[in-house]
Amino acid sequence: MSHSNLDLVNQVDGFPYPDSNTDQYLATINTYYQLRIAGHDYALGYMLPSVAEVFRGIPNWQLDDDDRALTLTGGSNAEERSKAIETTLLAMRETGHFKVLNKWRDELYAVYGKGKEVLFNVERSASPLFGVVTYGVHCTAYTKKDGQVKIWTPRRARTKQTYGGMLDNAVAGGIASGESPFESLVRECAEEASLAEELVRSRAVPGGTVTYWYIRDERAGGETNLMQPECQYIYDIELPEDVIPKPGDDEVEEFYLWSVEEVQEAMKKGEFKPNCALVVLDFLVRHGILTSENEKDYIEIVSRLHRRLEFPTL
Amino acid sequence: MSHSNLDLVNQVDGFPYPDSNTDQYLATINTYYQLRIAGHDYALGYMLPSVAEVFRGIPNWQLDDDDRALTLTGGSNAEERSKAIETTLLAMRETGHFKVLNKWRDELYAVYGKGKEVLFNVERSASPLFGVVTYGVHCTAYTKKDGQVKIWTPRRARTKQTYGGMLDNAVAGGIASGESPFESLVRECAEEASLAEELVRSRAVPGGTVTYWYIRDERAGGETNLMQPECQYIYDIELPEDVIPKPGDDEVEEFYLWSVEEVQEAMKKGEFKPNCALVVLDFLVRHGILTSENEKDYIEIVSRLHRRLEFPTL
Repeated sequence: MSHSNLDLVNQVDGFPYPDSNTDQYLATINTYYQLRIAGHDYALGYMLPSVAEVFRGIPNWQLDDDDRALTLTGGSNAEERSKAIETTLLAMRETGHFKVLNKWRDELYAVYGKGKEVLFNVERSASPLFGVVTYGVHCTAYTKKDGQVKIWTPRRARTKQTYGGMLDNAVAGGIASGESPFESLVRECAEEASLAEELVRSRAVPGGTVTYWYIRDERAGGETNLMQPECQYIYDIELPEDVIPKPGDDEVEEFYLWSVEEVQEAMKKGEFKPNCALVVLDFLVRHGILTSENEKDYIEIVSRLHRRLEFPTL
Repeated sequence: MSHSNLDLVNQVDGFPYPDSNTDQYLATINTYYQLRIAGHDYALGYMLPSVAEVFRGIPNWQLDDDDRALTLTGGSNAEERSKAIETTLLAMRETGHFKVLNKWRDELYAVYGKGKEVLFNVERSASPLFGVVTYGVHCTAYTKKDGQVKIWTPRRARTKQTYGGMLDNAVAGGIASGESPFESLVRECAEEASLAEELVRSRAVPGGTVTYWYIRDERAGGETNLMQPECQYIYDIELPEDVIPKPGDDEVEEFYLWSVEEVQEAMKKGEFKPNCALVVLDFLVRHGILTSENEKDYIEIVSRLHRRLEFPTL
């Protein structure tokens, strides 16, 4: 099966848009429950009704079926709210309510309010239950040989639980609460590609963000159809020809140095981890390789790579 | 008055977004009339009720107040539709209905359907009456001196009817029906900056699109509050130090070679033509100059520069 670039975008940015006919859009969002916190009258994420239902009657939470909202009532500051959420989630993990909680990471993600303040931190594995916006860094490492761009493309370990054996961006990872995108990048470059800190600090160049609204399928593990709106901070790093990324942990099997054509061929075959394909597309657009002349869906793709998320972001 | 970068975006991308509270958004779009063509059941643009009203009872048009839609019923192919629209617009120009028609350009813009087919062409000056998506090219010319980017920044002639005396992108122009973005760029580079065709063809690099939904104010000329959703194809051209852009017509007063700081200072003061400021922001993001570390509204800005337009695009 051959995937067009727009197919690849549709796989990742799957939540509907409010087109001039807004009926389908409204029907869709009315399916979900909004996640809110007391005193803040806006949605922080969308939850499946089957997920929200589990919070009914639990201390610190209020489920309102008329408003279709789950509100965290416990805690009056970020620390207290985070604690209240953790207490609930730990209990739910014990009782085995949610499969996603079996992959507890002991890593906190921050959720922001309209003033860009941290409202609370939430265990990473639980974030898709709430449908809150999560943040990551993705970095494309490349070299130029005779004026031609070659892209360092890792293959994920086949033993990895999620998207095992698929192709990835050179470096990618989630941003833990309190960490800056750039410091996260420096850390991940060492862990995942054995790139020296000096090299990364002097050569990594930010290139914007890629934002999309992912609806999780079975490949992500755990419950399906959970909402995962994401913001990836994008970096490029041009490596000297003699620098070769090496897997720094057991998450990557091997790095290939591929021509753009080889990368595009693998994308067509659906070999890339879905959100990583979007980062490649963004790279190709920014470097003038994917253009209005060779990509019929150019306008749509460029917009879709930069979705404006409906929830507050950092 | 000092403008933040997000202020500059808000000035140009002014149409509301359907946030998780969609009430305001729906109230807004319900204010307008949709432009449609017979046999195609979707909106091609939004029109002010005061504009749509003028088409009531005119041959080839049908105004439906319940559906809040103005439908072009005349013509069964692009040529016939274009002719029907032209006939109406020429009559309206005669009777002086719309101020925007006083600036008749004798230049046609294409309007596309969901299959990317040309549905009709419309006189450029009339396009904001219908609120259809229009297309242009904007090119940033720059040089690198001692590793520092310097941006060629023209000042529009003070005698220009629209945005006279404001700062602009090095080269910018609308794409006429039938013209490709790149050919449009080559033509405009010669006309507006006296850049040789050879130089442009070998050095101009596409960098994506900037898309936004502009609501016209008095500076645009003619009626205010008309909708102007736009898609700008973006190009960068790095010029050798000895190439100096020169105004090729009387539309530009002078080119400045400015540091990024000088450009940003002028942006803060609101000296740029509003949509050109967005093209500068996109350039600064793509070149790693505007980053998540020096711009607090980074995520919002990057998304807003790439708005997904609700209407079919090319």
